[in-house]
Amino acid sequence: MDLPIKAAILICSDRSFNGERKDQTGPAIKQFLREHGWAVTKHEVLPDDIDQIAFWLDEQSGSGSFDVIVTSGGTGVAPRDITPEATLKVIKKRVPGMEEAMRARSLEITPHAMLSRGVVGTVGRTMIINLPGSVKGAIENLEIVLPALPHAVALLRGEHPDP
Amino acid sequence: MDLPIKAAILICSDRSFNGERKDQTGPAIKQFLREHGWAVTKHEVLPDDIDQIAFWLDEQSGSGSFDVIVTSGGTGVAPRDITPEATLKVIKKRVPGMEEAMRARSLEITPHAMLSRGVVGTVGRTMIINLPGSVKGAIENLEIVLPALPHAVALLRGEHPDP
Amino acid sequence: MDLPIKAAILICSDRSFNGERKDQTGPAIKQFLREHGWAVTKHEVLPDDIDQIAFWLDEQSGSGSFDVIVTSGGTGVAPRDITPEATLKVIKKRVPGMEEAMRARSLEITPHAMLSRGVVGTVGRTMIINLPGSVKGAIENLEIVLPALPHAVALLRGEHPDP
Repeated sequence: MDLPIKAAILICSDRSFNGERKDQTGPAIKQFLREHGWAVTKHEVLPDDIDQIAFWLDEQSGSGSFDVIVTSGGTGVAPRDITPEATLKVIKKRVPGMEEAMRARSLEITPHAMLSRGVVGTVGRTMIINLPGSVKGAIENLEIVLPALPHAVALLRGEHPDP
Repeated sequence: MDLPIKAAILICSDRSFNGERKDQTGPAIKQFLREHGWAVTKHEVLPDDIDQIAFWLDEQSGSGSFDVIVTSGGTGVAPRDITPEATLKVIKKRVPGMEEAMRARSLEITPHAMLSRGVVGTVGRTMIINLPGSVKGAIENLEIVLPALPHAVALLRGEHPDP
Repeated sequence: MDLPIKAAILICSDRSFNGERKDQTGPAIKQFLREHGWAVTKHEVLPDDIDQIAFWLDEQSGSGSFDVIVTSGGTGVAPRDITPEATLKVIKKRVPGMEEAMRARSLEITPHAMLSRGVVGTVGRTMIINLPGSVKGAIENLEIVLPALPHAVALLRGEHPDP
């Protein structure tokens, strides 16, 4: 893979969208990915609205501009948490092993990890990854899936034939 | 959380419903939850019928009377085991991490744990948790998810803002 | 269980179907299962076409001839990998614990295991198990689920009442 992995970041949070809380997780994810050589060229904040999030994910994945879209927030069991459901509306193929790997590792840190409902899946040549909303949770989860992502992106781009 | 967690128990078993087998798991779950300070105010037995189970789950979760509904039985791969499918008809959000945590821990005890198909999910402000039918399996699984439940119920009740 | 477990093998691979690559995984699975006393009486190769795979799985599971159908290939995230989606069209009950067990063990070997999207589920009295395409990956995964399969098949055949 010659080109860097191209990524977009979407923060799903009513409070960040309304300006009640400064988005700290978006910049942390951006810095983390750039340190690993990724090209992050989009970073937006939306409220916890299933239709707005699904529309944005559909639009950005369909643009052909991103290998990976990383979302943060809205993955818990509170009434407003609907990022996984928005993601399920958009993806065509689910990648449950990435979800399981993130939760299994987080579960070693806290039992609350079992409440994290983040979905991972692909649509076309784009992979969408739901991360928790906190800086700590988001980066911890990213670190777990990062080693598999260059291979995943190469496969999505069609650079490898089936093995 | 000032109030105790309010729970209902549903036993899914043709044989217990028909009186061929005494329901031992229901009382064991009730005792276990009460020892942990929960308020258990409903305990019923239904046959392994997808429509009856789904209707009951829908009715009880919609009643606003329960934070958690615990089912036991019908989670395996036998032809009559349909509790997960009944649950999937009712829940709006799946909580796969709780399912994974229960199976991963049980798998350390027996390889048959991988056949346990229990679903966890939420509808409105109620969480539904499928447990295996045996006393031992049900209590072992409950012990695994128990540490996450006070936080889950607080979130479902809207007592925490999104983090 | 007096009779041996009856199995069919389906290789999902454009390249093996087109004759570009010799199918090595099918014979390896066949030998492995026979060494464990199973009766393998069908072994076919299909291209990575969702409709052809789903049709074949539906037909063979409906035939009543097989306790277990093992597929190999098409479980990754490349654009042509659609075996899980074909399987999801056919199964009536998902067995996520078998999927999780295979991935959790494989993850100890390589982070790429989290990209394996293999589905396990049942339709009627037949269980369908998706394995990776490589000989090594397929056999490693089979070894993980093998200890649970005699019990699973007995349950599917209705030889055990609910516990």
